[in-house]
Amino acid sequence: MNEHRRSGRQARQAERAHKGGGMGRPYITRNIPPYDIMGEESLQKIEAAADRILAETGIEFRDDDTALDLWRKAGAEVDGLLVKFPPGMLREVLKTAPAQFTQHARNPANSIQIGGKNVVFSPAYGSPFVMDLDKGRRFGTIEDFRNFIKLAQSSPNFHHSGGTICEPTDVPVNKRHLDMVMSHIELSDRPFMGSVTAEERSEDSIDMCRILFGSDFVEQNCVILGNVNVNSPLVWDGTMTKSLRAYARSNQAAVIVPFILGGAMGPVTSAGAIAQSLAETMAGCALTQLERPGAPVIFGNFLSSMAMRSGSPTFGTPEPAIGSMVIGQLARRLNLPLRCAGNFTTSKLPDAQAMMEGTMSMLSAIHCGANFILHSAGFLDGLLSMSYEKFMLDADLCGALHAYLDGVKVDDDALAVDAFAEVGPGNHFFGCSHTMAHYETAFWDSELSDNDPFEKWEAAGSVDAATRANKAWKRKLAEYQAPALDEGIRDGLNDFIAKRKEGMADAWY
Amino acid sequence: MNEHRRSGRQARQAERAHKGGGMGRPYITRNIPPYDIMGEESLQKIEAAADRILAETGIEFRDDDTALDLWRKAGAEVDGLLVKFPPGMLREVLKTAPAQFTQHARNPANSIQIGGKNVVFSPAYGSPFVMDLDKGRRFGTIEDFRNFIKLAQSSPNFHHSGGTICEPTDVPVNKRHLDMVMSHIELSDRPFMGSVTAEERSEDSIDMCRILFGSDFVEQNCVILGNVNVNSPLVWDGTMTKSLRAYARSNQAAVIVPFILGGAMGPVTSAGAIAQSLAETMAGCALTQLERPGAPVIFGNFLSSMAMRSGSPTFGTPEPAIGSMVIGQLARRLNLPLRCAGNFTTSKLPDAQAMMEGTMSMLSAIHCGANFILHSAGFLDGLLSMSYEKFMLDADLCGALHAYLDGVKVDDDALAVDAFAEVGPGNHFFGCSHTMAHYETAFWDSELSDNDPFEKWEAAGSVDAATRANKAWKRKLAEYQAPALDEGIRDGLNDFIAKRKEGMADAWY
Repeated sequence: MNEHRRSGRQARQAERAHKGGGMGRPYITRNIPPYDIMGEESLQKIEAAADRILAETGIEFRDDDTALDLWRKAGAEVDGLLVKFPPGMLREVLKTAPAQFTQHARNPANSIQIGGKNVVFSPAYGSPFVMDLDKGRRFGTIEDFRNFIKLAQSSPNFHHSGGTICEPTDVPVNKRHLDMVMSHIELSDRPFMGSVTAEERSEDSIDMCRILFGSDFVEQNCVILGNVNVNSPLVWDGTMTKSLRAYARSNQAAVIVPFILGGAMGPVTSAGAIAQSLAETMAGCALTQLERPGAPVIFGNFLSSMAMRSGSPTFGTPEPAIGSMVIGQLARRLNLPLRCAGNFTTSKLPDAQAMMEGTMSMLSAIHCGANFILHSAGFLDGLLSMSYEKFMLDADLCGALHAYLDGVKVDDDALAVDAFAEVGPGNHFFGCSHTMAHYETAFWDSELSDNDPFEKWEAAGSVDAATRANKAWKRKLAEYQAPALDEGIRDGLNDFIAKRKEGMADAWY
Repeated sequence: MNEHRRSGRQARQAERAHKGGGMGRPYITRNIPPYDIMGEESLQKIEAAADRILAETGIEFRDDDTALDLWRKAGAEVDGLLVKFPPGMLREVLKTAPAQFTQHARNPANSIQIGGKNVVFSPAYGSPFVMDLDKGRRFGTIEDFRNFIKLAQSSPNFHHSGGTICEPTDVPVNKRHLDMVMSHIELSDRPFMGSVTAEERSEDSIDMCRILFGSDFVEQNCVILGNVNVNSPLVWDGTMTKSLRAYARSNQAAVIVPFILGGAMGPVTSAGAIAQSLAETMAGCALTQLERPGAPVIFGNFLSSMAMRSGSPTFGTPEPAIGSMVIGQLARRLNLPLRCAGNFTTSKLPDAQAMMEGTMSMLSAIHCGANFILHSAGFLDGLLSMSYEKFMLDADLCGALHAYLDGVKVDDDALAVDAFAEVGPGNHFFGCSHTMAHYETAFWDSELSDNDPFEKWEAAGSVDAATRANKAWKRKLAEYQAPALDEGIRDGLNDFIAKRKEGMADAWY
């Protein structure tokens, strides 16, 4: 079992965590074990299937001759773009990857541990649209992008500022990454992610970190993550492998993520999709180690399902939730930090469907042992829209999950045996000394849920959760204050951005 | 690990389960293990604390001299109403209780297994109010009661008809049980629950089963459950102990449930509340065995939390969810069937809060290994109201949980290694032979979720989940057809009811 003694400081943090919804921890150290649902024999079968896919079908690596060279030198069989891997080869290569690493924040108090028993919540990533209850759905802008950074920074329930929280579609495609990274640096003092949409944009993102942290520090420490996707099934595009190599080359962490909709980019059966994703992720993670042995890397995964009658993708469904637990077991057998699942739904409103699907999906990330939970908050519309209201509801769920991951504390004080003697049969515990000593920190306290009696709720206007969330994000944005940033660094970053932008004509696709 | 080979019949049932949302299984046999979150040392501490509470503080048994006699004879220390139990005594008494038993339905195809790896979903129980989106909140009536039985019977996602689904407040209190049991028998052919609000009402409920099943059958088999509550902390009221003894005496199963709101009827710390509930439940379960050794009994639990600033109870919060997993471990150590958690929320609408809280709470029942999940569907308003729309949303979640509990099947076909060879890198799986062979049964298919693209959803009127649920319950009620019932039995039951009602003046409290 996974119980461990916590230091006094951690214990006090955990105590505070229950108080008034204010979590205030740089990251969570889980006090409950992951949920292992699959037995050894089945796990070995999945690993063997992945090995067969790698050895017999192989993976194509497109538009990246360097990657092909690295594979050839490492002992893979390269035929044109197709790379086949002898059984066990990738596991051997992956032995240099760290099981846990620090991602530094510009505010050192917010630096995070990725791996082991640690859990980090990061906002959702990559939607072209944004939504709110007032204006409905529209394309995201840089203002929306900055708003979501502010909302995340304002909440004690996140540990990370995220990356492409929404696409700022009013900024040219080839310049977006500069404004996005600058926004994360200016508006948040938590760790963040950079661009991966081109090798030079990855390099720009890392260069901006060199200005922020100093080049020597960046050479020695992870300060930025880049999330790269496999072109499933079994294709790695050059844009992605060049970016993942750029991150690894600079000792920064790539997050390696297949995006498999069962029945489309992979088999409709979960076991097959899991074997495929294991193969694809191992290949991507191993390539970082060939580029730079010891570079931090995160084993990523994204399972989903499909409404087979319409072909529409479905999210927050049971099969990906349960499959994520298996992915977690496989990642731990590789001794790699895990990114898996998040808060997914196909609902187009912050309604009952959204939170039924979102909660099942988010809990799968918690149970599978994910260390870096991207997409913790904001998604509606099958990943296509960031919703202001859903973001607030999900932030509240992230708060609850702090208490969840703290598990059940068992010691003489928590067991309260003396309190039973004090209170005795048939009397209430409201005023007893044990209750008085603990009531302020006993339970997680939602900022959004309405726990009032019906009559009080009705007298206050019968407001639903989405409407409360609508008020909450407006209040949080109005109250937001940017964390201080050294003016010399700010100027240096602005100079860098101006120079880079000067050299490029606007590109819009 | 908890994987087991299923028979061909079970495998086909599981296949069908994924098809079009139609589950159609009499009960679920879980293919994933429970989620054990606590280590041995902490479990032993909780058990030791429960033993100390039982031995040192004791439990009061009010208004039931027979219970006191039974305790005295079994070796407990009885002082007035207070009973103290030597350490280990209750565990010894509990050894005669079965780890698993059958509850028979009048349709034998719907008989259920309670215990072991089996999971049964039953509607919520006990609300005085009902709600729908058209008429808001009002007191429940016998028509509402019958409507909810029809809705449960119409759904393949339940396995049990429940008990007091809502209070039929338009029927006299002393006659309600007769109309409720008759409604379950007439409108459903699944197993159900009887009354516990007085010993004679328990006897009436069981007598009606004797008419339905025959007296000899009832003497040998469990055909009805009675859900009895502890008057926490540490008091058993005579009404409840007389009812639980009535069920046990007739070889029927009592469900023994403390209802602890942390900070009110128990300590604010989870470990203390769990120790208390273990003590209270063991005492109730043991009393059934003193009444009739070998009688079926269910170890029940109900943890909740409290908004400490207002004193309002909170539901669907993280602490009870995580505490439920510990309860599950403790119940398995006693080798008793478990009832724990369910779908709880304080929301007054079928909104985002309702399903965030409900899903977290319901998943805790799934993860803790509960065998009989009462309150699977319908609750809003902190257990005070049954909502027609929430019932439909929860029924849909129950459907998803069938697929969840089936886990991940791992065999050559599911691993799809040949499909990878057929499809190859970069091609899609839409039309491949593996997909064609599996697509109809691959994924659970929600009856209520909207998975359409935004534009299609918008063109269809931008309908939210609660509104879809509103349409769904009306359609289901309109389409409902009662299962056939032998007319001789129906007449016998009606005669019994008429005779019992004749003998009583209406009582309204």
